[in-house]
Amino acid sequence: MVRAAVIPAPNQPVQVREYPRPKLEEGAALLRTLFSEVCGTDLYLQQGLLSETPYPLIPGHASVGLVEEVRGQVCDTEGRPLLGGEMVTFLDVHGTCGRCWYCLVAKASTRCPHRKVYGITYGADEGLLGGWSQYVYLKPGVRIVRLPESLAPETLIGAGCGLPTALHAVERSDILLGQTVLVQGTGPLGLSAIALTRLRGAYNIIAIGAPERRLQAARRMGADVCLDVEKTSIEERRAAVMDATGGRGVDVAIEASGNPAAIQEGLDLARDNGRYTVVGQYTDHGPVQVNPHTQINKKHLDIRGVWGIDYSHLHRSVLLLERYNDQFHWEELITHTFGLEQANDALAAVRSGQAIKAVITPWGAQAEEV
Amino acid sequence: MVRAAVIPAPNQPVQVREYPRPKLEEGAALLRTLFSEVCGTDLYLQQGLLSETPYPLIPGHASVGLVEEVRGQVCDTEGRPLLGGEMVTFLDVHGTCGRCWYCLVAKASTRCPHRKVYGITYGADEGLLGGWSQYVYLKPGVRIVRLPESLAPETLIGAGCGLPTALHAVERSDILLGQTVLVQGTGPLGLSAIALTRLRGAYNIIAIGAPERRLQAARRMGADVCLDVEKTSIEERRAAVMDATGGRGVDVAIEASGNPAAIQEGLDLARDNGRYTVVGQYTDHGPVQVNPHTQINKKHLDIRGVWGIDYSHLHRSVLLLERYNDQFHWEELITHTFGLEQANDALAAVRSGQAIKAVITPWGAQAEEV
Amino acid sequence: MVRAAVIPAPNQPVQVREYPRPKLEEGAALLRTLFSEVCGTDLYLQQGLLSETPYPLIPGHASVGLVEEVRGQVCDTEGRPLLGGEMVTFLDVHGTCGRCWYCLVAKASTRCPHRKVYGITYGADEGLLGGWSQYVYLKPGVRIVRLPESLAPETLIGAGCGLPTALHAVERSDILLGQTVLVQGTGPLGLSAIALTRLRGAYNIIAIGAPERRLQAARRMGADVCLDVEKTSIEERRAAVMDATGGRGVDVAIEASGNPAAIQEGLDLARDNGRYTVVGQYTDHGPVQVNPHTQINKKHLDIRGVWGIDYSHLHRSVLLLERYNDQFHWEELITHTFGLEQANDALAAVRSGQAIKAVITPWGAQAEEV
Amino acid sequence: MVRAAVIPAPNQPVQVREYPRPKLEEGAALLRTLFSEVCGTDLYLQQGLLSETPYPLIPGHASVGLVEEVRGQVCDTEGRPLLGGEMVTFLDVHGTCGRCWYCLVAKASTRCPHRKVYGITYGADEGLLGGWSQYVYLKPGVRIVRLPESLAPETLIGAGCGLPTALHAVERSDILLGQTVLVQGTGPLGLSAIALTRLRGAYNIIAIGAPERRLQAARRMGADVCLDVEKTSIEERRAAVMDATGGRGVDVAIEASGNPAAIQEGLDLARDNGRYTVVGQYTDHGPVQVNPHTQINKKHLDIRGVWGIDYSHLHRSVLLLERYNDQFHWEELITHTFGLEQANDALAAVRSGQAIKAVITPWGAQAEEV
Repeated sequence: MVRAAVIPAPNQPVQVREYPRPKLEEGAALLRTLFSEVCGTDLYLQQGLLSETPYPLIPGHASVGLVEEVRGQVCDTEGRPLLGGEMVTFLDVHGTCGRCWYCLVAKASTRCPHRKVYGITYGADEGLLGGWSQYVYLKPGVRIVRLPESLAPETLIGAGCGLPTALHAVERSDILLGQTVLVQGTGPLGLSAIALTRLRGAYNIIAIGAPERRLQAARRMGADVCLDVEKTSIEERRAAVMDATGGRGVDVAIEASGNPAAIQEGLDLARDNGRYTVVGQYTDHGPVQVNPHTQINKKHLDIRGVWGIDYSHLHRSVLLLERYNDQFHWEELITHTFGLEQANDALAAVRSGQAIKAVITPWGAQAEEV
Repeated sequence: MVRAAVIPAPNQPVQVREYPRPKLEEGAALLRTLFSEVCGTDLYLQQGLLSETPYPLIPGHASVGLVEEVRGQVCDTEGRPLLGGEMVTFLDVHGTCGRCWYCLVAKASTRCPHRKVYGITYGADEGLLGGWSQYVYLKPGVRIVRLPESLAPETLIGAGCGLPTALHAVERSDILLGQTVLVQGTGPLGLSAIALTRLRGAYNIIAIGAPERRLQAARRMGADVCLDVEKTSIEERRAAVMDATGGRGVDVAIEASGNPAAIQEGLDLARDNGRYTVVGQYTDHGPVQVNPHTQINKKHLDIRGVWGIDYSHLHRSVLLLERYNDQFHWEELITHTFGLEQANDALAAVRSGQAIKAVITPWGAQAEEV
Repeated sequence: MVRAAVIPAPNQPVQVREYPRPKLEEGAALLRTLFSEVCGTDLYLQQGLLSETPYPLIPGHASVGLVEEVRGQVCDTEGRPLLGGEMVTFLDVHGTCGRCWYCLVAKASTRCPHRKVYGITYGADEGLLGGWSQYVYLKPGVRIVRLPESLAPETLIGAGCGLPTALHAVERSDILLGQTVLVQGTGPLGLSAIALTRLRGAYNIIAIGAPERRLQAARRMGADVCLDVEKTSIEERRAAVMDATGGRGVDVAIEASGNPAAIQEGLDLARDNGRYTVVGQYTDHGPVQVNPHTQINKKHLDIRGVWGIDYSHLHRSVLLLERYNDQFHWEELITHTFGLEQANDALAAVRSGQAIKAVITPWGAQAEEV
Repeated sequence: MVRAAVIPAPNQPVQVREYPRPKLEEGAALLRTLFSEVCGTDLYLQQGLLSETPYPLIPGHASVGLVEEVRGQVCDTEGRPLLGGEMVTFLDVHGTCGRCWYCLVAKASTRCPHRKVYGITYGADEGLLGGWSQYVYLKPGVRIVRLPESLAPETLIGAGCGLPTALHAVERSDILLGQTVLVQGTGPLGLSAIALTRLRGAYNIIAIGAPERRLQAARRMGADVCLDVEKTSIEERRAAVMDATGGRGVDVAIEASGNPAAIQEGLDLARDNGRYTVVGQYTDHGPVQVNPHTQINKKHLDIRGVWGIDYSHLHRSVLLLERYNDQFHWEELITHTFGLEQANDALAAVRSGQAIKAVITPWGAQAEEV
């Protein structure tokens, strides 16, 4: 039997349930899960804040483990077949159809209506389709990436879903060499956005976040100026940003906070003719007020929403981890480790802001705080 | 003496005043004004809605006329000297410094803080620096464009400031061949946006505006579907747009209405991964509510503010008028013509929505409605 | 039995052969061919100039006809099932894998190594996979587009493969409103490039081609200046282009000629900081001499190769035909019509330059010259 | 009197001449030169290989020094006036007119025909307008940049003209995070291109160059794989590149070698749908053979020429030096230092490839090799 942590229904505590080990269909593989991430989205799922969630649900959309079993030919994008025993991660997005108007005409793959996501829109009734499980069933067509030998699974899960999402956002931000960038939010997404902004050759990186533990991590990931959102007023932060930018505001601002109030502040802190990328608003907290004259039109501003990732973002994230982890040490973002039985504690650690990154070890026994 | 129409102070009626004919400094020229435009911005100026307006003010930022006098060498961008007698228009934006951070590092010329605008930020105390005047003083460095022989001054002024502004907005919108585009607003700016969208090879063009006279013009400029904003509900318009787009919304929406409420509607009518260009919010009417989750982040939307124009937009507008006016007949947008003495009537005609385009003829005697 | 025209081997005349009517597999459809195009590529196939051609081969990569039979559910990109009887065309490119590095990481779908092309890289031994056949077997996954009711099949085939290929090239050329564009070549590809350049709002369009019949077509498609490559020297053409562009050269040049010598001329006729798009070099005629200092580096030139099309190019081509054919009349490009038995005559008509566009009517009896 | 090194005529040895100390016009400044660069372009100037060079000529287009004297108000782009005593560098490009078609319509400032370059197109008869001089006359309008306090003049001159030129080239190359990049050439331009490619977050960087001393520098600047062009065959280099890229070739290749033969190799080593940036071909060595089918059209390649720099490239180069020199140590590229009297030795050191970067110290006495 396979043990998995399950959200039975909105606002219910997570339970550990047992499922039979699945038989593989042709083209499928089975992943023995070493680590699966606890993400802010998992909080929303447990709170019932996402629409059309198929409860009961096994959370976990970023995971790493060993290929336990393969049925038929399952290849990576280089066409190399998986034989079993490889350390891999996989793209949580599955089933992008490649046939619809969004896929073929708009080439907007992250908006394909047929797209499903492991641990978010696939329910437990459909199989072991989330990472908080000893095994994950990798359906035919799931995009699997081998970890390079030098890349530890802890590093991969320390980066988690935040790194490829940040990669998508940073690329949409079109940062030029030597520009000054503001990152709003110092959770896992914001921290990876800081690292990647550093990797794009920014001049100054300003981070707004909290608590102090996360701001320390922000400094390690490359932030030059850190502003504690809980200990500063909006006027103080504005003064700090203007002071760092000749009174103009930042060339690029990246919202990675999940807080709608950040939008108004970000629109004000981006400079005229700058860019503002919105990537942290992953659930609906209602509207905010925006002034279309002063904050968009007269400002000649570009605002860019960023939804989800595609395979290229995951693929290149793995390459970046291989090449640059010596500089950033993503595994150090992991502050808490929990077994399946402590999944509710894991959610609590993330909810409180205590954790930077919490991970589930489905085969481990003990919770641990780094 | 030179007669000019002047706004003496906010909310005061326009008066005709007389000024001495100016002496030219080296590199300056004098324009004998044939036509000058009445634009929605002139209403704002008369109502005192723009900040830091230098009253008394001679309005008129888009004008056409004959070169009356030149002092020294004054050349067009091809390096051909003006000798007097040429039919020309000129870029209202003057004094972009070419030396500041915005000009040189950001290359954001429309946000140069040294930039001045004829008829808007230059006051009457500084000279004949607005088009509602028998003569306009073209300072050294003003960018002057000759009209091609085949291009009538009525056509140029019928396009007015709306055409180059629409050109800027349409280029920022990155419309692809065969896409469906929504234009919000059927004033001069919206009508030129419709024409240019047609010139970019859109498939369907949907216009939202009023009154009927302007919607008829929208059809002539190339709109395929026209929705009367005064006679339809927001639900009816949404249904019409979704019906025309397979339920997805438009590929590109362009706001050219000046109405802040248009923002919320436009954000909803653009499709996922589409673009929304905001070019009509030329004065501050306060904030609107925007949902950062559903309308930006999840939508993966690009929102692009567009402020002002630079010389290239005017230059290419003249080329487009020369080449394509047979298709669009911009001069037919002129519905009203007024002498200097009727300037208040001109503002009233624009304010009421009666006029599509009203023009001032500083040397003419009689008001006329087409 | 199904009759089809077949190239048996390189440099062999085309033969009409008979094949059994195929049984459909699940997800397949059968097209009753009304028209199939004769393209310059078919000449290369008959001459053995393309590598790895799977002879015997049924040519014909752009075709239009009626859905004769469907097995299972076959949908268009809007998800509407085909029932039989619809007038359709289809994307010749099939089998782009969606799984490899080129598809997923580079997003370079036209360079997917698994990609096959009807009438070019699929051979007759694999089925009725070319348009010079009474029926074409549409394999599962072939992208099918319905013709709008107002769009005649003659118009679709008059545009043929040239229109979507030109669409790809024109989009890669990033033509701005009011720019001057040179199109080299006045065959079907060049003529559609002229039409689409017009649809992008170019100012002047200069065409270089021959013979006179094609130059007349170029004028109809929107060329402002036509230069007969057989009756002018390279110096005369250069003088004409410089005369039309203030001595600077064109903003954008598009090579659609298939003649390697055009490359050197195009590099010289594009202006500094302009663009040069190369889309006509569909077979290997050996190298040409290029000066990297004067023609690339000092010129600050962008050169862009364009290979093949994807579904979006075909989809939007059909929308453009529906919306704009009244302006361009693509069906008038068809100068010759041939039955299957006259396929060798069809190739001869294209080879000689006599034809602008020749089409095969697999069910028709008689050759015809318009 | 001011001492300066002068090229009297093509192929003549450099001479030291004396000039009177210039009187400043309003808006001008005088630079006391600490260091001026010896660039490959200076070799071309001495050999008479550039067209329209105004001999006699004081070379030196990248220089650093102290503001000795200012007449009137001379400001940097932040609007801060220079008072004298500041450590500065300046943009060698001067006189970009801001009025012509290239400046205003094409926005192609590096192709403005009025543009002059200190040390290259300004001759000694026009003043002290090159850096191999104890003083440089900074005309009104010259763009001056202060060095941040933490930035040593040795670091600035170690980067020299290569860094801003590489910045222009790397930005035109649109490198994505995690891509593999080839840099051809390991002179100062290539070495800065390697550093900036690292700063853009490339995965693998492959450098081709020589001799070993420069390859060692390439490794320090971030190259992962270094191929000695003098000790490897073209086949060996191709094998190494294909081995590093899954057989596909590099995502982006940057030519920074000055050798026309590099063009053919670079076109072959870039992958399908990749990019090839040509920035090293600064003089005319005649044509090379290019296959438009296999190397451009079928390859779906982007080729981008890059000419010169504008102010933004210099401005951001200084920011990058301030922020990232700890990682790259540009000053270590300086291998040779010469006084004015040893200017011919300086040219010889560069010509032989012995030097990576040689600099002139107009006030120093002794040649020195690091």
